[in-house]
Amino acid sequence: MSSHHIVREKQEPALIIANGESCSVELLGQLLEWSPFVVVLDNAIHRVISLGIKVDVLLGDFDRDINLQEIEQSQYPIEIVYTPDQDKTDLEKAFDFLINRGFPAANVVWATGRRADHAITNMTNIVRYKSKLSIVMIDDFSVIYPLLPFPASFEKWYAKGTQISLIPIGSATGIITENLVYNIDNEELILGYRSGNSNEVAADGIVRVSYKSGDLLLMECHD
Amino acid sequence: MSSHHIVREKQEPALIIANGESCSVELLGQLLEWSPFVVVLDNAIHRVISLGIKVDVLLGDFDRDINLQEIEQSQYPIEIVYTPDQDKTDLEKAFDFLINRGFPAANVVWATGRRADHAITNMTNIVRYKSKLSIVMIDDFSVIYPLLPFPASFEKWYAKGTQISLIPIGSATGIITENLVYNIDNEELILGYRSGNSNEVAADGIVRVSYKSGDLLLMECHD
Repeated sequence: MSSHHIVREKQEPALIIANGESCSVELLGQLLEWSPFVVVLDNAIHRVISLGIKVDVLLGDFDRDINLQEIEQSQYPIEIVYTPDQDKTDLEKAFDFLINRGFPAANVVWATGRRADHAITNMTNIVRYKSKLSIVMIDDFSVIYPLLPFPASFEKWYAKGTQISLIPIGSATGIITENLVYNIDNEELILGYRSGNSNEVAADGIVRVSYKSGDLLLMECHD
Repeated sequence: MSSHHIVREKQEPALIIANGESCSVELLGQLLEWSPFVVVLDNAIHRVISLGIKVDVLLGDFDRDINLQEIEQSQYPIEIVYTPDQDKTDLEKAFDFLINRGFPAANVVWATGRRADHAITNMTNIVRYKSKLSIVMIDDFSVIYPLLPFPASFEKWYAKGTQISLIPIGSATGIITENLVYNIDNEELILGYRSGNSNEVAADGIVRVSYKSGDLLLMECHD
């Protein structure tokens, strides 16, 4: 672990770089400032190294062609974590790793786009970690937050017109929203049947979202 | 409707071009051969016209800047369908339109990637139409089929090693698979908690997948 993290006592979120669509260099640069501890998943390491980024942890089952010795030399010091468990995705293993290391939060990039199976699995698996790790998944078009159920409540200031989608993973019951154009008053959303896609902020100010049970993602997206 | 469809009596699937990430020109060209009746969603029309593609139907709520008269002239004959319903996505409206016109099947492109809210909504909303329209969603990395529950059974020949993911939308119960490396024997998958991501075909031959209730997508994906 590089020294600046020890000094800051893990107040910052870690940054996980997964294996989907790359985001813009600007977004990645901004996230690296906020989250200097970098965990890279498996074969994404080649794309990350080619961008000149210093990696703290490389994690994966390394079942494809990868020269770990060369990576270890060029990125020294780097921690290489071999995770052969077939029942979990690399992203889940990275969440487990960060929770064990005491990180309170993680930003995740390159986890969406490209393969639809990985994209939907990555977006939906984050709900299972929602009470253990504060996760934000980010790409060039989207910021995704898994929300905590009651008694927690999501509150954030938005400008009028900001597009907000509420996406239940499975279902989410007792949803209540404030300051959206199409507010939801104690209703259930069910993925594939009734989702809160493409809502928007009614007026400059705080948006509040709470729900009783199930799993709910909030997404800020733009074209 | 252009004449070749009347002659062919709608045996072919229609092609819906949605508003997400564009696919490769090669894939789009191949799909246009298989599905010559083309429905374009709202603002995607500009990207589609710039590719020199003849469009049969343009469908949307047209709430953003769009010059319908100019499109009508350049694409004549084209059917323009105004669908202001805020409770459905443009893709759902396109499915409704094709079902009303008697189409048995639809291929869908540009429905994934880019905005995560649209991508997950598009991928998951197709389950609601599974008994009315045979839908295949395609991008450069993925082919997505909503499977029908028992007594139906999905059967298709695959080469050994083909990557197959089974993604429940909500949950799917009583799943039985044959000829996968990690077969599933009468088990339940739950999105976000237990998914069948990244399985693969065990041997050259038929793969069979059946399930009892819920909703299940099969995805063929590659890097």
